[in-house]
Amino acid sequence: MTHVVVLAGGWGERLWPLSTRERPKQLLDLLGEGTTLLRATLARVSPTVSADDAIVMTSRALEERVARELPEVPRSRVIGEPAGRNTAPAIALAAHLLLREDPDATMVVLPADHIVRDAEALRASIVLAVRAAESGLVTLGITPTRPETEYGYIKAGQPASVEGVFKVDSFEEKPGGATARGYLERGGYYWNSGMFVWRADRFLEETARWLPDVADALSSVTASPGERGFREQMEHFYGSVPSVSVDYGVMEKADDVLVVPSSFGWDDVGSWPALLRIWKTDAAGNALRGDTVVLDSSQCVVCSESGTVAVLGLRDVVVVRTADATLVMPADRAPGVREIVKELGEGGQRA
Amino acid sequence: MTHVVVLAGGWGERLWPLSTRERPKQLLDLLGEGTTLLRATLARVSPTVSADDAIVMTSRALEERVARELPEVPRSRVIGEPAGRNTAPAIALAAHLLLREDPDATMVVLPADHIVRDAEALRASIVLAVRAAESGLVTLGITPTRPETEYGYIKAGQPASVEGVFKVDSFEEKPGGATARGYLERGGYYWNSGMFVWRADRFLEETARWLPDVADALSSVTASPGERGFREQMEHFYGSVPSVSVDYGVMEKADDVLVVPSSFGWDDVGSWPALLRIWKTDAAGNALRGDTVVLDSSQCVVCSESGTVAVLGLRDVVVVRTADATLVMPADRAPGVREIVKELGEGGQRA
Repeated sequence: MTHVVVLAGGWGERLWPLSTRERPKQLLDLLGEGTTLLRATLARVSPTVSADDAIVMTSRALEERVARELPEVPRSRVIGEPAGRNTAPAIALAAHLLLREDPDATMVVLPADHIVRDAEALRASIVLAVRAAESGLVTLGITPTRPETEYGYIKAGQPASVEGVFKVDSFEEKPGGATARGYLERGGYYWNSGMFVWRADRFLEETARWLPDVADALSSVTASPGERGFREQMEHFYGSVPSVSVDYGVMEKADDVLVVPSSFGWDDVGSWPALLRIWKTDAAGNALRGDTVVLDSSQCVVCSESGTVAVLGLRDVVVVRTADATLVMPADRAPGVREIVKELGEGGQRA
Repeated sequence: MTHVVVLAGGWGERLWPLSTRERPKQLLDLLGEGTTLLRATLARVSPTVSADDAIVMTSRALEERVARELPEVPRSRVIGEPAGRNTAPAIALAAHLLLREDPDATMVVLPADHIVRDAEALRASIVLAVRAAESGLVTLGITPTRPETEYGYIKAGQPASVEGVFKVDSFEEKPGGATARGYLERGGYYWNSGMFVWRADRFLEETARWLPDVADALSSVTASPGERGFREQMEHFYGSVPSVSVDYGVMEKADDVLVVPSSFGWDDVGSWPALLRIWKTDAAGNALRGDTVVLDSSQCVVCSESGTVAVLGLRDVVVVRTADATLVMPADRAPGVREIVKELGEGGQRA
């Protein structure tokens, strides 16, 4: 059976100050559509995969709020991690839990904070990936529409046995501009969306091979969510495993990795300049939200959640105001938001 | 006798959003010294001129607050103008009122929202100007310390009869950069501080000559402040006079205009970049106030009155946050704040 696993553990620090640890990106209504990114994530894959047996991995701090946000997911299946250990341990734990209840489980792993404009196309890709998952670990690769330097790339190789699916030649780190343009021209390179489909048993085999510490630690998790002892076993598990991404820890090393080239209007909204693609822009190319006065400016992202934000004579600048903070930076410095958050203290809020 | 006349009518829109019509510049503690610019204006000229018989011209909207701020000034001498008509009518009205109570009155006219770092030097200039006022209308001219393009200049001519005082050759509009550098090199040019000293009778003679509408309208003001009818007479006066500055309306045309070259650490803090001179700067030349995180930035003015302001990777940019608004602009666009205020509606606050 196919189960969805939603990864809702981070808080999206590169969208600070709109997102904070207290109000993480996946709980924002970033599209202004009256729903959170998290709810939309689950809603758009239905009915291909059902929310009823979804597993949602989040942080312990967010566990209750995520559960309230997703009432259709059984409470015991919203799992609050006691510590952030990146994606590999979270996915391995979900696989471990699913496998106990369904030896034939196939998992659709979805980040909770991405945007997908064409849900039907996403569901079609998932259907294809589920078929391909009988012969490997499947990633959804996004056909690039621009020479993006903020995403990792997947290089496709030979066709796989399922039509429309390819073997993965290699995973490529975020490239420079020239390299990204080369990928776009040559074709056969896809953005690594962080969406995966695989059989739980197969994933755990690869985990045992490439991340034996994680596999070993899983053996101590014998209780089920909601059962006595589960919480303590979680503490032990997260205290034992390294912090490692599933890309680096498993996918780049495993055999039989496959990619489903896809086009479903995906965007990870990874940082502020992405809003220039997501929000409507004015005639000068400014993406505006809230009470703003923007004069003689172009290609700016200007967002106010509280009070008036006035911008004069700027280009390619991000200005974001919330009740607690204001951020101002050139768009090309967007990754540097992490430095500000670090300066402020964990969570992006003054202690 | 010498009387001080304080001009406290404007609100300093170029320092929006820190200043608003509700919270004007002269009532801010811009230096962080625990006092407002208005209080400091009066305090620093004591005991050369006394606050007891000061006249303070302000707007009707600010009248009560200005009076509370200056308890040493008799309430009836804080005069709320029913309409803003620039400086000439306000000064003429003050001269008219002073002359009725003291036919020998000399007035020291001081804007309420400037900074003076050396009060003793200012008082010495005033003493000199009071002596010179027996033979003309006296301005305090500031020896320029940089080729400032945001101030008007006074060109000094021949020495006057009082030592240290010169006849004024001409008033020069805000110059371009090359012209300002020329003034600085040649010498004999002084910043027009907007501080004046003259005999009330002499000023009214010149007013009658150059602004006859203003002089005519004065004749209908027969009551004294606090007396029955004064308020209605004020309405009539301000309804009859043109809006005109004392520089343009009187000083540039009058004979016997004199200048006292002075150096008393004057700054009119006319717009945001001035704070780079006024506030302490960090090692990168940023003028910071309030809760700020400023990374990899230089020559910025960053001010927060409410919440955290984070700035990354900017140079020569002004960022100001109050409880109600955030302003972001390059320093060289500072005069454009007026456009933003206009956009927001009068007073710099959303209706």
